[in-house]
Amino acid sequence: MVALTRTDIDNMDTLYRINLINSCSGYKSANLIGTQSNDGFTNVAVFSSVIHLGSNPPVLGFITRPDTVPRDTYENIKKTGFYTINHIYQEITEDAHHTSAKYPKEVSEFDKTNLETSFKDNFFAPFVKNCHVQIGLRYVEEYNIQVNGTILVIGEIEKLYINDSILETDGFINLAKAKTATINGLDGYTIPQQSIRYPYQRPKST
Amino acid sequence: MVALTRTDIDNMDTLYRINLINSCSGYKSANLIGTQSNDGFTNVAVFSSVIHLGSNPPVLGFITRPDTVPRDTYENIKKTGFYTINHIYQEITEDAHHTSAKYPKEVSEFDKTNLETSFKDNFFAPFVKNCHVQIGLRYVEEYNIQVNGTILVIGEIEKLYINDSILETDGFINLAKAKTATINGLDGYTIPQQSIRYPYQRPKST
Repeated sequence: MVALTRTDIDNMDTLYRINLINSCSGYKSANLIGTQSNDGFTNVAVFSSVIHLGSNPPVLGFITRPDTVPRDTYENIKKTGFYTINHIYQEITEDAHHTSAKYPKEVSEFDKTNLETSFKDNFFAPFVKNCHVQIGLRYVEEYNIQVNGTILVIGEIEKLYINDSILETDGFINLAKAKTATINGLDGYTIPQQSIRYPYQRPKST
Repeated sequence: MVALTRTDIDNMDTLYRINLINSCSGYKSANLIGTQSNDGFTNVAVFSSVIHLGSNPPVLGFITRPDTVPRDTYENIKKTGFYTINHIYQEITEDAHHTSAKYPKEVSEFDKTNLETSFKDNFFAPFVKNCHVQIGLRYVEEYNIQVNGTILVIGEIEKLYINDSILETDGFINLAKAKTATINGLDGYTIPQQSIRYPYQRPKST
C-alpha cells in the first residue's frame, strides 16, 4: 500500500492532488444539469456531484463552486428557481464531458454538441433529449460549506420522466439497462453492467 | 417515457418511492465507514452517500440521518472525532451490504461478517482490512438539512492508503482495477469495467 499523510497530500503537485482526491470517494454519478436564463439562454453542464438526499419529500443535492465553470448553471438556478438533472448514458459521454469547457454565457453548450434540448409540460428549464432519466427540480435551499467555499444546492423533484423499459415493478430504475455512465475521478467514464440486488438485511442470530 | 408529477410521487407506496428516488440520482459510491466508540466498541456500516467536496484541503462528505441504522457511526464520529472510509470491492459486497442490519451498539459488524479491522499508524478508528483504498478522516463540521432533517457530515483526510497497483502516475486511482463497487438505488451492487478518460476540454472554435 502507498501510505500518504496529510502533509504528503498538502505538498503534492496540484493536478496530481486533484486527480487523487477526486478519485478517492469512489464512483460518482454522471449527470447533465440543464438550465435557462431569464433572457432565454440555455445551458447544460456535466456534474459528478449529484446525490440523493431523501425520498419523502423527493430531494436531490449537488455541489458547485461559485467561481468555476458551472457558474452559469448556479446563476440560472438562483434567478429562475428551476433546473433539470439528466442521466448521462453511453452514447453521449463524449459530448457530456465537452460541456466542461468554459464557454461564455451567450454560447449554449447545446449548440456546440449533439445534445438537444427538450422542453415539456411547461417546465421552465430544458431537459436533455433522449436521456433515459430526466428530472425537473425546483430550487429549495443551499448551504455554504465553510471549510472550502463550495455550495450544496438542494432541490425538490417536480417532474420525473423515465424510459419505461428500465423501470422495474418495485420502483427500481435499472441503470445498467439504460447504459448509464458513472465517473471515476475528474475525467474517467465507465458503463457498468447488470447489478446484483441484495435483500433487506436483518441481524444474524449467531 | 413514464411521466410522473410531484403528486404522483407523493401518493406512491412508500417502498416503491424509496426504490425509485434512491435510483434516480444515478450511480452512487460504495463505502464502508469504520468507527470506534470511546469505550472500545468498533462499528462498520455501508454508506452510498460519500462525496468529494474538494481537494485542497482534501475534504469528503457523507449524508446520514440521526434516527436510522448508521446512528452508531454518527455518534462515534461526534464523540471521538475520527472515522475511516473504505472502498467496497467485488469480494466483500455481500458482507458490506449486511452491515445495514440493525445490530445493537455492543455488537460489532466486524464480528458478524468476514470484514476485519485494521488499526495502523495510531489512527483511532479502524480501517477495513484488504480494501484497496482506505481513508482516515478527522471530523470538521456538519450541516443540518432543513428540508428533510438529514445531516451532511464533513471531514478532512488525514491518512490515505492506496494499493500500489491501482494508482496511476498522474494521481488517478483506477477504481476498475480494484474491482470497486458502485451502488444502484438501495440494494443494487455492480463492478464497472475499465474507464475511458477524456482530456481537459477547451471551447470549440466553430
